[in-house]
Amino acid sequence: MSYTLGTFLTASIVISAAAFLFAAWLFRWVKAMPSNNARIAEVGALIRGGANTFLRKEYTALSRFAGGVALAILLFLPSPIWQGEAMDNVYMMVAYLAGTVFSAVAGVIGIRVATLANIKTAEAARKGIKPSFMAGFRGGAVMGMAVVGSALLGVTLLTLLTDDTSVLLGYSFGASSLALFAKAGGGIFTKTADISADLVGKVELGIPEDDPRNPAVIADNVGDNVGDVAGMGADLFDSNVASMAAALVLASVLDKSAGGAANSAMVFCYAAAGLLASIIGVAMARMGNHGPTRALNNSTYITTGIYGVLTALATLIFGFQWRIWGASAVGLLVGVIIGIASDYFTNDARSPVRNAAKASESGPAFTILSGVSYGFISALPSLIGIAVAALAAYKLCEPIGDGYAMFGIAMSAVGMLSIVGMIISNDAYGPIVDNARGLSEMGNLGEDVLEITDQLDSAGNTVKAITKGFAIAAAGLTVIALLGAFISEVNEAALAHGLAPITGFDMMNPTVFFGMLIGVAAPAVFSAMLILGVNRNAQRMVDEIHRQFREIAGLREGAPGAVPEYDRCIEIATNGALRELIPAGLLAILLTLAVGFIGGVEAVGGYLCGNIVTGILLALFMSNAGGLWDNAKKYIEAGAHGGKGSDAHKAAVVGDTVGDPFKDTAGPSINTQITVVSLISSLAATLFLTISLF
Amino acid sequence: MSYTLGTFLTASIVISAAAFLFAAWLFRWVKAMPSNNARIAEVGALIRGGANTFLRKEYTALSRFAGGVALAILLFLPSPIWQGEAMDNVYMMVAYLAGTVFSAVAGVIGIRVATLANIKTAEAARKGIKPSFMAGFRGGAVMGMAVVGSALLGVTLLTLLTDDTSVLLGYSFGASSLALFAKAGGGIFTKTADISADLVGKVELGIPEDDPRNPAVIADNVGDNVGDVAGMGADLFDSNVASMAAALVLASVLDKSAGGAANSAMVFCYAAAGLLASIIGVAMARMGNHGPTRALNNSTYITTGIYGVLTALATLIFGFQWRIWGASAVGLLVGVIIGIASDYFTNDARSPVRNAAKASESGPAFTILSGVSYGFISALPSLIGIAVAALAAYKLCEPIGDGYAMFGIAMSAVGMLSIVGMIISNDAYGPIVDNARGLSEMGNLGEDVLEITDQLDSAGNTVKAITKGFAIAAAGLTVIALLGAFISEVNEAALAHGLAPITGFDMMNPTVFFGMLIGVAAPAVFSAMLILGVNRNAQRMVDEIHRQFREIAGLREGAPGAVPEYDRCIEIATNGALRELIPAGLLAILLTLAVGFIGGVEAVGGYLCGNIVTGILLALFMSNAGGLWDNAKKYIEAGAHGGKGSDAHKAAVVGDTVGDPFKDTAGPSINTQITVVSLISSLAATLFLTISLF
Repeated sequence: MSYTLGTFLTASIVISAAAFLFAAWLFRWVKAMPSNNARIAEVGALIRGGANTFLRKEYTALSRFAGGVALAILLFLPSPIWQGEAMDNVYMMVAYLAGTVFSAVAGVIGIRVATLANIKTAEAARKGIKPSFMAGFRGGAVMGMAVVGSALLGVTLLTLLTDDTSVLLGYSFGASSLALFAKAGGGIFTKTADISADLVGKVELGIPEDDPRNPAVIADNVGDNVGDVAGMGADLFDSNVASMAAALVLASVLDKSAGGAANSAMVFCYAAAGLLASIIGVAMARMGNHGPTRALNNSTYITTGIYGVLTALATLIFGFQWRIWGASAVGLLVGVIIGIASDYFTNDARSPVRNAAKASESGPAFTILSGVSYGFISALPSLIGIAVAALAAYKLCEPIGDGYAMFGIAMSAVGMLSIVGMIISNDAYGPIVDNARGLSEMGNLGEDVLEITDQLDSAGNTVKAITKGFAIAAAGLTVIALLGAFISEVNEAALAHGLAPITGFDMMNPTVFFGMLIGVAAPAVFSAMLILGVNRNAQRMVDEIHRQFREIAGLREGAPGAVPEYDRCIEIATNGALRELIPAGLLAILLTLAVGFIGGVEAVGGYLCGNIVTGILLALFMSNAGGLWDNAKKYIEAGAHGGKGSDAHKAAVVGDTVGDPFKDTAGPSINTQITVVSLISSLAATLFLTISLF
Repeated sequence: MSYTLGTFLTASIVISAAAFLFAAWLFRWVKAMPSNNARIAEVGALIRGGANTFLRKEYTALSRFAGGVALAILLFLPSPIWQGEAMDNVYMMVAYLAGTVFSAVAGVIGIRVATLANIKTAEAARKGIKPSFMAGFRGGAVMGMAVVGSALLGVTLLTLLTDDTSVLLGYSFGASSLALFAKAGGGIFTKTADISADLVGKVELGIPEDDPRNPAVIADNVGDNVGDVAGMGADLFDSNVASMAAALVLASVLDKSAGGAANSAMVFCYAAAGLLASIIGVAMARMGNHGPTRALNNSTYITTGIYGVLTALATLIFGFQWRIWGASAVGLLVGVIIGIASDYFTNDARSPVRNAAKASESGPAFTILSGVSYGFISALPSLIGIAVAALAAYKLCEPIGDGYAMFGIAMSAVGMLSIVGMIISNDAYGPIVDNARGLSEMGNLGEDVLEITDQLDSAGNTVKAITKGFAIAAAGLTVIALLGAFISEVNEAALAHGLAPITGFDMMNPTVFFGMLIGVAAPAVFSAMLILGVNRNAQRMVDEIHRQFREIAGLREGAPGAVPEYDRCIEIATNGALRELIPAGLLAILLTLAVGFIGGVEAVGGYLCGNIVTGILLALFMSNAGGLWDNAKKYIEAGAHGGKGSDAHKAAVVGDTVGDPFKDTAGPSINTQITVVSLISSLAATLFLTISLF
């Protein structure tokens, strides 16, 4: 069937609009559910208020940062404004700002619905597990639809407005900037609150989790929302946009040399098909009789299947290259497989978690040593998966013609990220039901309800391991495609400046190797700074909690009228998160610029490569080790090795505390770091090419 | 002045012989020192016996392994025996076996003198710190001289016997095989004993370190010798040989195209100058009034200076290239700077250790989080140092002509490793004085003596951090040079098979990238397997110690005649070390072969690169984090944050236990892993080139 690029741009807009309408319908559906427990409403309002406080402060800080970056873009990118076309710089700046705004709006929507759905989920649990599950799942799906709808809509609109794909990299960079704040900042917030609430509440005073006397308890619940809902959403928004941008940059080069717009059209077609598949998948999701975990996983598999069929149909109808369809399918398949591998290392029915739990009997040092070891080992299957996906996509598409091999990798990343709407839905489900569990405890809804929310919560934790592995793999494949986009940008700039194009980055070139050695250190130092940030911030909050218990009369005893100052804890978490995030974020950016201005584009190529490969390694290590410790603790709490209160349990708690910033702050933030660094490099390609020491 | 290659080969033999004679003189000097305490003699004999048991078993296992490898070499390397020159295979096999034997002999000598010098050092402490220092230092220097002498002698003899530099890679591979057993096996042994002795003795029973009632106490002292003396010696023997082999492989290519043997001559000249400098440095070493740490560091600086002067003189006299002298000097300088950077992160006068000690007040999780973070950050300066050294050496030597750039990097590694005789002397000093401390406690030599040995021991620990950073940096630079040797081997094979030569490894080539992603995982998985091995083995030994305390009547109370079965613990440590080491070693080798036979030489190039860069990162991370935890614990024990027995101290002990296998098993073994993998790849280059899936 004959088509134009316009056909697919229109389809993308229509499907994005459908996603928004569906999100609105889901939101109203959740909102219409009954809620009438005053205590829950009160606590729910505190959580909502805290989340809004964080978002307001974060977005204020971000808008200052983004303003500075926007000004720098206006002056210097894609080339200094006094040298190139001034309008190019204006477009780039607008695209950058659009990237931050679209992602921020999706974050606000996500938080808004999550802090509503938690209440509804808690109250629905009184009617049974199925309505409660639906409230949690559909609440999460609002975020999923909003994120993917706005990602696709933004890319489509920018393509309509400018026909310069570099501008898409600017949009993607905007999304990354926001993700850096949302994921790393949210990650510091949530773990600051979580760790200090546990440290004083559970360890020192021996009061239960979610006890309302604990001044940090609201901050802890807020943290789930800002870290896991807004943070994870921004992270996947970022990867999703980056995969489309990388694919479109490469497609436009191919289209230019072949004439027409077949490749760009295909990118939009596949991305739109992915969103459509996610809409159908979400709409069809129901909980059967096999429990919530099965329900969540089934919807992922169904979406995957629908995507495969839709894209195959489109390929047939529009006469796209089957090889590229194959690359895209391989990416999706490998994404799912990597998720399953992550599950193996964090599932308490498997030997890694069991061995770590057993090792805890000898003391916390052995818990740590086991977790670190299995965390490192867990990286192997995923790295092999990414390696195979990239190699298979490349080899599949190489025969089509020059440049298609790298485009194949980009389409493999697009394929992997196609079902991201579904992934986000599953992921946002986690903190909603986690909150719901806390609310049912604080609202005294009784044992039956608590059991249901516990079951929903446990499913959220299991699925989280899979979606996290998936997110890291997707980011990995995306940044490999961004490497291709980087070369393409470099060569466009080289052409414009009459310089020789580069064909690759030879590791035997010492400038490349120089960059690579420094790139290898970058994600390690970045994640270390975030962890130290959590460490310092938690110390501050522990001091504040101690102060409240000391100064507020009757608080420790739970005397009526003795209310903790929840706001102070939220304030500490918020301010600390922003303060600790800035140096790490700046380091990531400045190190890239330093390498570029010292060693030029070749050093940057090596730097990106080193950054990407160790970034993936460390992200997998930290996420999986953290998940393993979490589940080893839960496994012991369920009765193994002496159960709660035993020495093994105490050791496992140490492991869990170490794992908290690993899995929820540093690990997932590395995703963002590698994307930010890759995008800056592409955007500053002209500068590195023309101004460098070597 | 005119010269032939023979001039320098002769000089190398003469200086090697001088090193052996000097070692013999030092040995007699140490042996002639008085010793007459019966209790010390008795315990000393137990330690010596245990160390010999370990060596015997290790060398038996190794000889089986080496026999298998030798057979495989005979059949397949450098090319299948039925295809190429059969004598090439025989030479290669002989060289391989020579590498294992020379290194093993140096190890035996080192252990022999270390288990003698520990007694002499303890007894000399009764006369004061200076004679005691000299006993420890000169005991260590025997090992230093033996190692470097046999490394240089082996390379020289093989060069005289064959004029095929590939054979040197075989010799180097032999040295690496031994190092894998000695370093990883010794590392598992020493930490098994150390951790379980502490866990039962100090933590459970509250008896002091080195208490003779503890059945693991002798194994612990044996461990210091087999891990730190024999293991570290084999590791540096390995790096030293590898740096010479890589430089000679590259030099021979240059010499072939230029005629003559100027470059090969230069390698021997510089290596011999380094050994001579070390001999002079050791001979001049005395303890002044500034304490033992200053004495050890001063001898390093003096040796460095002598090396610089000697090589400058040689360059002037023989008309070598000054640019190459510059590359070599840069390497040495950077090695020293990296050592100082490592010291910063592990010195208790600096903020990283202080912060980790302070964080311990909040519990062990915070000790771990701080140490992990600073460990990752500590990699940055060293990686920048290696990157700058490689880049500077390359840029310095590039103008000389084609191929000199990579030769410059190799000479930079030779320069860095030139003072290795001195480094090993300093390093072996550590376990000798550590043992001496234990012996003076067990021999009841009194508080004054204990204070002196404590002071000597503390200097050993400080210097150890520096020498470890140095060893990792040297291994890093060496394997970069081995990458050059790998390409050179590949191209020689390509020429022989009429295939196109390769010029480098382009990261945008998906086969290279495929290899790189898997290479990145290799050192992570290797080190994780060693750590799990220590974990498992320590559990076994803890069970055995419990059994002895339960079954041997009067042991716990220290009744006269109740002697623990020290041998059983030594046996468990020995057998476990070998059993746990094999899978990790096999994985390192098989993963390389798998990548090579799947993706061919390009995949192997990427694999090596990924393996090297993450290997360096993880080795620095683990060594420095481990050193930091060790010193944070000691800092608290010295009275900070509540001192011994406080909660902060308990938390710091957890950190120290985690750090033990990090810094003494996994971290330093990664050095060996990256060398082994690089050498196998070079040796199997022909196979990968001719037989591979892609």
